[in-house]
Amino acid sequence: MNTFPRLDREIDELAAISAHPAPAVTRVLFSAEDLAARQWLTAKAKEAGFHARSDPAGNLFIRWEGEEPCLPAVATGSHTDAIPNAGKYDGVVGVLGGLEAMRQLKEGGHAPKRSIELIMFTAEEPTRFGIGCLGSRLMSGSTSPDEARALRDPDGRSLDELREAAGCRGDLGAVKVPSLAYTAFLELHIEQGPLLEAGQLDIGIVEKIAAPSAFRLLLKGAGGHAGAVLMKDRHDAFLAAAEIALLVERAALESGSPDTVGTCGLVEVKPGAINSIPCDVKMEVDLRDTNRETRDKALAKIAEGTREICRRRGIEIDWQVINQDPPAICEPTLVALVENKAKAAGLASRRMVSRAYHDSLFMARICPTAMIFIPCHKGYSHRPDEYSSPAAIAKGVEVLKECLKELSMR
Amino acid sequence: MNTFPRLDREIDELAAISAHPAPAVTRVLFSAEDLAARQWLTAKAKEAGFHARSDPAGNLFIRWEGEEPCLPAVATGSHTDAIPNAGKYDGVVGVLGGLEAMRQLKEGGHAPKRSIELIMFTAEEPTRFGIGCLGSRLMSGSTSPDEARALRDPDGRSLDELREAAGCRGDLGAVKVPSLAYTAFLELHIEQGPLLEAGQLDIGIVEKIAAPSAFRLLLKGAGGHAGAVLMKDRHDAFLAAAEIALLVERAALESGSPDTVGTCGLVEVKPGAINSIPCDVKMEVDLRDTNRETRDKALAKIAEGTREICRRRGIEIDWQVINQDPPAICEPTLVALVENKAKAAGLASRRMVSRAYHDSLFMARICPTAMIFIPCHKGYSHRPDEYSSPAAIAKGVEVLKECLKELSMR
Repeated sequence: MNTFPRLDREIDELAAISAHPAPAVTRVLFSAEDLAARQWLTAKAKEAGFHARSDPAGNLFIRWEGEEPCLPAVATGSHTDAIPNAGKYDGVVGVLGGLEAMRQLKEGGHAPKRSIELIMFTAEEPTRFGIGCLGSRLMSGSTSPDEARALRDPDGRSLDELREAAGCRGDLGAVKVPSLAYTAFLELHIEQGPLLEAGQLDIGIVEKIAAPSAFRLLLKGAGGHAGAVLMKDRHDAFLAAAEIALLVERAALESGSPDTVGTCGLVEVKPGAINSIPCDVKMEVDLRDTNRETRDKALAKIAEGTREICRRRGIEIDWQVINQDPPAICEPTLVALVENKAKAAGLASRRMVSRAYHDSLFMARICPTAMIFIPCHKGYSHRPDEYSSPAAIAKGVEVLKECLKELSMR
Repeated sequence: MNTFPRLDREIDELAAISAHPAPAVTRVLFSAEDLAARQWLTAKAKEAGFHARSDPAGNLFIRWEGEEPCLPAVATGSHTDAIPNAGKYDGVVGVLGGLEAMRQLKEGGHAPKRSIELIMFTAEEPTRFGIGCLGSRLMSGSTSPDEARALRDPDGRSLDELREAAGCRGDLGAVKVPSLAYTAFLELHIEQGPLLEAGQLDIGIVEKIAAPSAFRLLLKGAGGHAGAVLMKDRHDAFLAAAEIALLVERAALESGSPDTVGTCGLVEVKPGAINSIPCDVKMEVDLRDTNRETRDKALAKIAEGTREICRRRGIEIDWQVINQDPPAICEPTLVALVENKAKAAGLASRRMVSRAYHDSLFMARICPTAMIFIPCHKGYSHRPDEYSSPAAIAKGVEVLKECLKELSMR
């Protein structure tokens, strides 16, 4: 089976640039490791004869100038930042795989009409500023420069301070890309789910990208001694949270679509002693669907039910929206192109939904977009044992390469 | 209004022996502060002409020998240990108030037939070993010496190691008191609830002491990405916990008794990220009633429902009993005695239930027992702003004194 040893070696080289020892990979936005990874990638790009530049947010663009450089470019890419104790494939396969595809095309004598651009998006992971896909949000105008300027990391440092220290100069207003900058965007990515491996398939062709609506609930009740306050006199913030969590589950189950998922992943109960009635709960909720209407209907049901629960229980509520992005539909002709190229290469594929968040969600707002998934072991991701085989990666790069080749000549 | 300035001064003196600065009081079992408090109290007892001795567990007995020292003694007392950042009245009012009552009787020329014994129970608070009322449990045989020997504090130190370092020598088997050692036990205590203050009452006469059944649930489900795992494929440990918490509430509300209270006060959800399905939950539950049968029926309902919830959701469960003590009924003739003495002193009183845990719960197993409550500000307890006025304390001591006087002559 074909593999691309140069690419495999580079994935390992990049994985070694990490704040935690192998097999863990940790590269937080604008940390020493993130900066080293950017430098390393820029050197690789130049070595291959491509041009590299950064925008003021730190998005890195590696460009292979086409014969008609004024035409909208064909873009590919992903991210190289990694949450603490993650693995070495998430994002990286799309960035280094994109570089490999461009290099192979160049080495094979391809002379693109349109320019081909590889984008390494800044801060796809929300680790530092609590917001995911910061780079592609800014590029697509989904987050405004003012919103970005207001961001602070856990140490109180601003994006402006950190990006300038990292050498990303210029105004954040310049990050939004002009309309018609790109004719297409294709993101190669590990599935982060179990379906391809289970189905013994090589390629997942993403038709839709789910988008989360995330919100934080701060519930305030009344504390007291677990022995001393009678049930009828209680305002137990945790019992309200428990009811809301079950409501989120019900709203997802009864949305009418199996794609709706709702999760209360973060729950903090205070004061947190066996003999104290909970007076404060912080709960963060993630609700996703590939269809915005279905998701927003479920969300409305949750909001209404939550108000009723809190009124009935005498609980004060502070409902904070973390984000509420629309899902994306991949461009049908791009989806068909990926499907055809997979078929032509003799690969087994299926159409599917991306349930995780990707920069493609935001790129879809400014240009035709599609995603190419490859299988990963058991769907593991965001953990050190995340794994895609060299053969699986090579197949994804092969399909990406053929798509870029064709798109760059259209 | 009468107050007892010597007693008030001593309460302040003892409060100053604390690991945290005033107004907070922290005296953890066998800490330097606990040892200093024991020394200080022993000196006060000797100064007043009483005899003091410790048992191997550190229970401190301050004895005023009666004219017939072989008769079962009349006992009173409480505790002086304090959880971190507590106040200065919980327990202390019963110990120093008991000492004051004995001193006043002695100074007034009373010559008791039966000996009067003031007990300072070791480790009423569960801070160090996770189990409350350790001293009275051992005295009553409710906890066996072997169970006590197996205890370890958070640093891994054993009770034997700590008590021997504190000078409490001898075998733990010697702590259990012989049958018929006491003819009665009376505990003076702040209410730790709001009823007396709200009713402008001086004295609460405790008829029943509720007892918690406490258990820890370790729930193990399956984690995963909040976007990637469909609802029907989930085993969300937090949703099981949410259902169980609501079941605990329902079981308490529907027990048929308003005295049943159920609380899920400690809830820890892991991994605890907005985009991760909870795979592990630790939840600690406290269920109390003054009637053991009612409580145990509610408990059985919770156990059955929990099994059903976990089966249905595919959640592994580890149900750990923390304690399951029977509630206590105070001795009716002692209750009547306290009521009569309050009335004779012109004080406003009511009969009531103690919803908090006290050493009296265990003393009730070995001798007729009752409790005298006095009001405390807003029911606050276990916090630095815990407060009972000097006048309120003096009224409680007055009633205790008259009861001890009469009981010691019977």
